[in-house]
Amino acid sequence: MKSPNELSVGTVTTSTARLFAGDNPLRLRSGAALSAVDVAYETYGTLSPSGDNAVFICHALTGDAHAAGFHDGDTRPGWWDTMIGPGKPVDTNTWFVVSANLLGGCQGTTGPSSINPATGAPYGLDFPLLDMADFIEVHRALATHLGIDRFAAVVGGSLGGMQALQWSLLHPEEIGRAIIIAASSRLTAQNIAFSAVGRQAIMRDGDFREGRFLDEGTAPRRGLSVARMMAHITYLSETGFEEKFGRSAQRGELSKNFGVDFAIESYLEYQGERFLSRFDALSYLYLTRVMDYFDPFTDPQALDALMDDPVRFLVLSFDTDWRFSTEHSRRIVRHLEGAKLPTSFREIHSPWGHDSFLLDIPDYHATVRAFLERAAEDLA
Amino acid sequence: MKSPNELSVGTVTTSTARLFAGDNPLRLRSGAALSAVDVAYETYGTLSPSGDNAVFICHALTGDAHAAGFHDGDTRPGWWDTMIGPGKPVDTNTWFVVSANLLGGCQGTTGPSSINPATGAPYGLDFPLLDMADFIEVHRALATHLGIDRFAAVVGGSLGGMQALQWSLLHPEEIGRAIIIAASSRLTAQNIAFSAVGRQAIMRDGDFREGRFLDEGTAPRRGLSVARMMAHITYLSETGFEEKFGRSAQRGELSKNFGVDFAIESYLEYQGERFLSRFDALSYLYLTRVMDYFDPFTDPQALDALMDDPVRFLVLSFDTDWRFSTEHSRRIVRHLEGAKLPTSFREIHSPWGHDSFLLDIPDYHATVRAFLERAAEDLA
Repeated sequence: MKSPNELSVGTVTTSTARLFAGDNPLRLRSGAALSAVDVAYETYGTLSPSGDNAVFICHALTGDAHAAGFHDGDTRPGWWDTMIGPGKPVDTNTWFVVSANLLGGCQGTTGPSSINPATGAPYGLDFPLLDMADFIEVHRALATHLGIDRFAAVVGGSLGGMQALQWSLLHPEEIGRAIIIAASSRLTAQNIAFSAVGRQAIMRDGDFREGRFLDEGTAPRRGLSVARMMAHITYLSETGFEEKFGRSAQRGELSKNFGVDFAIESYLEYQGERFLSRFDALSYLYLTRVMDYFDPFTDPQALDALMDDPVRFLVLSFDTDWRFSTEHSRRIVRHLEGAKLPTSFREIHSPWGHDSFLLDIPDYHATVRAFLERAAEDLA
Repeated sequence: MKSPNELSVGTVTTSTARLFAGDNPLRLRSGAALSAVDVAYETYGTLSPSGDNAVFICHALTGDAHAAGFHDGDTRPGWWDTMIGPGKPVDTNTWFVVSANLLGGCQGTTGPSSINPATGAPYGLDFPLLDMADFIEVHRALATHLGIDRFAAVVGGSLGGMQALQWSLLHPEEIGRAIIIAASSRLTAQNIAFSAVGRQAIMRDGDFREGRFLDEGTAPRRGLSVARMMAHITYLSETGFEEKFGRSAQRGELSKNFGVDFAIESYLEYQGERFLSRFDALSYLYLTRVMDYFDPFTDPQALDALMDDPVRFLVLSFDTDWRFSTEHSRRIVRHLEGAKLPTSFREIHSPWGHDSFLLDIPDYHATVRAFLERAAEDLA
């Protein structure tokens, strides 16, 4: 289905770097410190001699460093392969793309299931609570490690967009453009409610063992799968669910029982199960909690740094996204435009709700492509 | 706060009647039979000598027979006390009101946690799957027991409205008017998804014991509370949550932890806990599943009986209800109007989402009141 100019970045591997250790611990916003921080990352494309063509990809809640291309032997590419590659909106013929697993994650970067060097056992709930700004400190350390002191663009959807916003607010001098997709600067009570119930499903699972499940050889699989199933409901629009599943039976006719009878039940069951093999319950707790507390514009100085180093913003929402509706994007835009920052905003039509940011929607991709083509014109 | 004409029905008690037993078992739509069925019910007001002033109240998923007035010693009245009483929209000065706990329920009517006479132990998952029509058969048996052969009106919200619709379709000769509030004739994939995840939370709880928890002295309290918390998110609108809670802290300032920090978290925790004392996990499974499968208009003969005995319908929705949005009500109205049945439809403005049907919203109550006043004009 791919046209000749829409090729994959090909086979890629994930690297890991120890970015904080010894006398260089990671100091967190909370005041706590992490004495050893590894970061898993991938890069696609080639860094220019002047180092001016770097783009940083921030992943969403359950993403990882593997954004594009194929790991050896895999049949499915990275999670944003529609967006990143030669000839794609984030064009690896132009850009050197960096994608890293988040601090607190579970795909190679240090998180609550990592070994606590002080005890030799997994951190569990002894892992410190994180802040959006902590993610940015680790991204910046990776940039230094890679010899990059400025990104032409930082791009992310959902929690990824929140990181792009946070980085722009804290260190605008390091960013040319920020693309903030289907994100929020302030979760609503309903948003927090969904996350809270997901966390309760995990923490009330008898196998959670107050976070020491790794030590005890268990895992809150039932709670984590319930949390994931519930979250999936919020990732798709009601219309999207109707188009995709409606009331159809999973097999032939509805047979009336408590098992998987409707196709929608099979979908949720599959999503819940599949998640268990790739995600950790503690990371789910820590990363969702960062989103709950993120609320940068309550600080009246939030935009001050941007006055000297304006970042060009592209803010995108999807009209059927009810997880982070267009109103969330409009709020971000109001703050940025209120500070007279160069801000483009578009609401993209898509029936697929929040998940749209992961999909190949022509109008969406064209908008990202055009915005980055402006950035490419600035390259040496 | 009550005006003189808005008094309570006063102190009431719940009665129980054995309506099916011995050589009169309840034959279910599935083909199964229940050899003993008790029904808990309450009545308010006085049946007229001609018996023409009866109104039947159908309750929603987690309701019970105690719709109005006060049980001895209680400080909170029944769940629809704003609607039912002397001078209220369902005026007990005019009407003899009957309210019964549903078949499959857990507040006095036979359900999956009742004792199976064949084994002497609770049914558990051996209780047969129910159908909306089974609820109606039991309501009709109660009517016979009370000497009522026709109701001037059948009234219900949410699952209660679905019963009012089902009864109108099956036995329109027994009903003068039906008031169908915030209901649906056909759950969407998203509706089913929420119910399915709630059931999974219950059934994956280690204490569920494949439905034999009563026998084993346990209860899936964690799963049931998670299901309830999730359902509560769908009962209120996003705007309602914002107005009521926003991002406020439960105590003073946000303290950043995994406990109950935001006020919305405290609300959900409270709702989840309170539910445990009054509801049964098996009833939750059985009653939600009836809603999933309810889809009466797929039968091309669904409206045939109504041709000879037209029921007057009032269909009401609330503009911020996203559990059963106005589109659900419009679908019901399209079917009824397509058969040229006398149907009034109104979308009521209310910020409170699905829960609005339980609240004293002046425009809503005035509409119900006016509709029943028309019915009162027909009385002898």
